[in-house]
Amino acid sequence: MTTASEARPVLDDSVRVDGQTVLVLDRRVFPEKVEWVRAHDAEEVAAAITAMVTQSSGPLFAAYAGLEITALQVAGLPVADAAERMRVAGSALASARPTNAHPREAVERVLRAIEPAASTPELVELAVDAARSGADLYRRRSRLLGEATVDLLPDGARLLTHCWMDTYLIELVRAARADGKRFEWVATETRPYLQGARLTAHTLAEFGERVTLITDGMGAAALAPGSTLGRIDALVTAADRVSLDGSVVNKVGTLGLAVAASAFGVPFHALVQAPDVNAPTAADIVVEQRDPAEVLSTLGRRTASGLVTEAWYPAFDVTPPRFVTRVVTDRGAFEPERVRDYFEAEARA
Amino acid sequence: MTTASEARPVLDDSVRVDGQTVLVLDRRVFPEKVEWVRAHDAEEVAAAITAMVTQSSGPLFAAYAGLEITALQVAGLPVADAAERMRVAGSALASARPTNAHPREAVERVLRAIEPAASTPELVELAVDAARSGADLYRRRSRLLGEATVDLLPDGARLLTHCWMDTYLIELVRAARADGKRFEWVATETRPYLQGARLTAHTLAEFGERVTLITDGMGAAALAPGSTLGRIDALVTAADRVSLDGSVVNKVGTLGLAVAASAFGVPFHALVQAPDVNAPTAADIVVEQRDPAEVLSTLGRRTASGLVTEAWYPAFDVTPPRFVTRVVTDRGAFEPERVRDYFEAEARA
Repeated sequence: MTTASEARPVLDDSVRVDGQTVLVLDRRVFPEKVEWVRAHDAEEVAAAITAMVTQSSGPLFAAYAGLEITALQVAGLPVADAAERMRVAGSALASARPTNAHPREAVERVLRAIEPAASTPELVELAVDAARSGADLYRRRSRLLGEATVDLLPDGARLLTHCWMDTYLIELVRAARADGKRFEWVATETRPYLQGARLTAHTLAEFGERVTLITDGMGAAALAPGSTLGRIDALVTAADRVSLDGSVVNKVGTLGLAVAASAFGVPFHALVQAPDVNAPTAADIVVEQRDPAEVLSTLGRRTASGLVTEAWYPAFDVTPPRFVTRVVTDRGAFEPERVRDYFEAEARA
Repeated sequence: MTTASEARPVLDDSVRVDGQTVLVLDRRVFPEKVEWVRAHDAEEVAAAITAMVTQSSGPLFAAYAGLEITALQVAGLPVADAAERMRVAGSALASARPTNAHPREAVERVLRAIEPAASTPELVELAVDAARSGADLYRRRSRLLGEATVDLLPDGARLLTHCWMDTYLIELVRAARADGKRFEWVATETRPYLQGARLTAHTLAEFGERVTLITDGMGAAALAPGSTLGRIDALVTAADRVSLDGSVVNKVGTLGLAVAASAFGVPFHALVQAPDVNAPTAADIVVEQRDPAEVLSTLGRRTASGLVTEAWYPAFDVTPPRFVTRVVTDRGAFEPERVRDYFEAEARA
């Protein structure tokens, strides 16, 4: 018997390789529509990432898939040409979005793996193995991260989350259940793309979790003492990046929730597999500015007055460490000021 | 020559009496559509207020208009019956929405005015005079409030505002210009009704003011130091109610902005004509809970996943006085802990 809690959410398998084509679930219209964008080479995968067809963990899986089909496509080339084509493909994928580091990590892993290749067949095999094992590793590390998060939270905890934690969310739910705990969820809708209303709330519902939706402006009211929503036990979000000073870069809106959580004594846990060794401070992380026109519309329909011409759309904001309780990684939870300890920590079992 | 800055915004004249009918501009669809709801008696006016056809200052003008047409409609009744009908009409209007106190104030003013009426013609005249002069007084007090706000702000100040300040906003812009100052504006879109994106941004644009739109989750990022949006000099919102302990009850989302402003050293000024003498603390103010289904949709279109069934929609939140810099009234600006001084203060010239 398959129960809701055993079902695999659609978004847990949203990038697929079909022959030499990558199928990317179009998160811009999901779940209203289940449509797949077909990308025939790495550049088309990169374009899909840039266009927000997929986001959060999606670009990681998409980048690995793009490298996998590129490897299949270079099978007839001399090895030097095949390697060069892999580098060009990697360059396109790595630069698809400036703040999300996942594609770059995927590219680095695969290009490193093919360095020793003496022949094209060897290169193809190494690339495909590195891409597939990279995706598997990401899921395993997300599960470790989920388990470390579960350790911080009591059974029955009510969690406020923002935007879409993707694989972290899915593995966190699985880790909680494996540990005999159940959580309740409050999700912000997360304008302008409504990832919370569409992806997070949908996936939690697919899992059979209890979820309550709020607008982005209601977070502080939900966190305040005496709220009619009832007690929130923790704010839990993903982090796109965490710099070595413990600053959390995540979907715009996280900062406001974190400041309110701090003001009202609610812990804020930010989840990331590892801090960013290349970013000593948040100033070393480029925060992507997206097209302000997206703020003027909702799911393709103009929602602002036609007289309004100016808007602002930073895709991410930076939460300083003083508003962060714990940075939770695949090696456990750290105080934000101590995230450098990650690199000396043992991997969790 | 009429310039944009001299034009009268549509929302400055959004409740009109036409014979014995009240025309109420439908703010639920404005500015996409300019539609007027026709209310033929006070009960229909009350129903329009309950249904959010108009909000903010709109219910005050609507309540006065509803009482004015009721007075005209009772002209043929014996005076006792006429007075009774006025009380019944007032009761419907006063209870149209639980948190917005404007209709109740309008009802009290008109019912007090007709107390000495010895004949029906006298009652009608007193009621119509009280209704019309009440609306005029509200505009004059809003102008005083605007002038007191302008005194707090330097020329060229960049102001973040939330939801829709209505007459306060309109009179604040006029007061600034009369004082030789110009401001720039950043407006939150204000889900679920998008009053900021539709009403505030539209009205500021009609005035020729510079306005930048952001989503509700971007407020803290805008207030944080070093924002790519540039410096915000003050958070300025209306207050639906201010209790005597200096708590500000306003559109949900105000609290989060106020907490962020406080954390980042940006002053928060809340505008209200007068504190609520009937509310010693915020606990004495009923915060309206609206239909959660409104969170699941945007302008009538479902925007949340179809699997989501639970949502939360408190129409207002409560900002404690520690996050408020000044409560600005028609008698000047007060520290929130000193709002009781309002009742001893002189009216501004």
